[in-house]
Amino acid sequence: MSQTLAKPVADLIAALSRLPGIGPKTASRLTFFILREGGDLAQTLADALQALRSGTVQCEHCFNIAEVSPCPICADAGRDHRTICVVEEPLDVLAVERTGAFRGVYHVLHGALSPINGVYPEKLRIAELVDRVKATQPSEIILATNPSLEGENTAAYVHQLLLTAGVRVTRLARGLPVGGDLEYTDEVTLSRALEGRRAM
Amino acid sequence: MSQTLAKPVADLIAALSRLPGIGPKTASRLTFFILREGGDLAQTLADALQALRSGTVQCEHCFNIAEVSPCPICADAGRDHRTICVVEEPLDVLAVERTGAFRGVYHVLHGALSPINGVYPEKLRIAELVDRVKATQPSEIILATNPSLEGENTAAYVHQLLLTAGVRVTRLARGLPVGGDLEYTDEVTLSRALEGRRAM
Repeated sequence: MSQTLAKPVADLIAALSRLPGIGPKTASRLTFFILREGGDLAQTLADALQALRSGTVQCEHCFNIAEVSPCPICADAGRDHRTICVVEEPLDVLAVERTGAFRGVYHVLHGALSPINGVYPEKLRIAELVDRVKATQPSEIILATNPSLEGENTAAYVHQLLLTAGVRVTRLARGLPVGGDLEYTDEVTLSRALEGRRAM
Repeated sequence: MSQTLAKPVADLIAALSRLPGIGPKTASRLTFFILREGGDLAQTLADALQALRSGTVQCEHCFNIAEVSPCPICADAGRDHRTICVVEEPLDVLAVERTGAFRGVYHVLHGALSPINGVYPEKLRIAELVDRVKATQPSEIILATNPSLEGENTAAYVHQLLLTAGVRVTRLARGLPVGGDLEYTDEVTLSRALEGRRAM
């Protein structure tokens, strides 16, 4: 193997294999694609990777990934700073922003509780959220963690911590996804949709 | 979107999306994984990408990707330089090397003929193979292109060109894959296995 695979090729395959969902086969395929591409792809990727860490910070208020702190959302006086939407990841901020239905601010936990995977409360931005709530006295905290086991546990844990803070804590509605099909909806989702039914 | 996604993050997502099989969703997931990783992953990847082009060459004889030219295989006097195994890609060299059953040398075409995708003979190292055969008078050319439509066409094309060179041209055997199941073998493979049956 080592005799026939040039070291730079083997090194890139090894580095790409460290990414989630990319095994040695895919890493080889990507490496030879980049080699064959010829153009600027390798350099573009290398530059983007180097800029990633040097060019980004976590916002001091919401811990979203941004170029400056405070981030554009926290710095926007036109947004409702009394409503904080708590999400697991920066990509969740994007998802909520895309709806155009939220004009408040965010708090990114950077994960969900998962003791089995070593993710304890102190690994997440939970203490910072509690401090922020105490310091800024918002009117509502929307817990928008994922509707998964870890997300639910995280929401329940954060809710407990905020009980004494005198703030309204809400959770995103569970129910049928728009465009979904009743027949193919799992029982848990359907029973949540029944529980949460609304007058028309 | 652009307001909530830091430019370095968006840039890396865009660059990763140019890789085959990686869409915007996977690119986002990889980007945030790299961000969260914290360690040296971004730098390791950036360094490996930069070394990839500066640290590799195509071997002047076999056109395999190597650190030096001639590559270690072509430079190895212990190998049989009169048997040339013609493959589509550098990874195919690895696959044949792993068998340990081949002690000859290689010729990497860097693709297979596919006129519909703009891959004509002049895009591949076919002329170089013909020149090499004329210059070095090998005893056997093994056409080890893939058993796909493109691979078969490429083998047939190369075979035509070598007809007048007075060299023995062979093709890898087609038949049942080891560990395969007769019941699930496609008709074409099974008929090839019948055609190529051998006395026990």
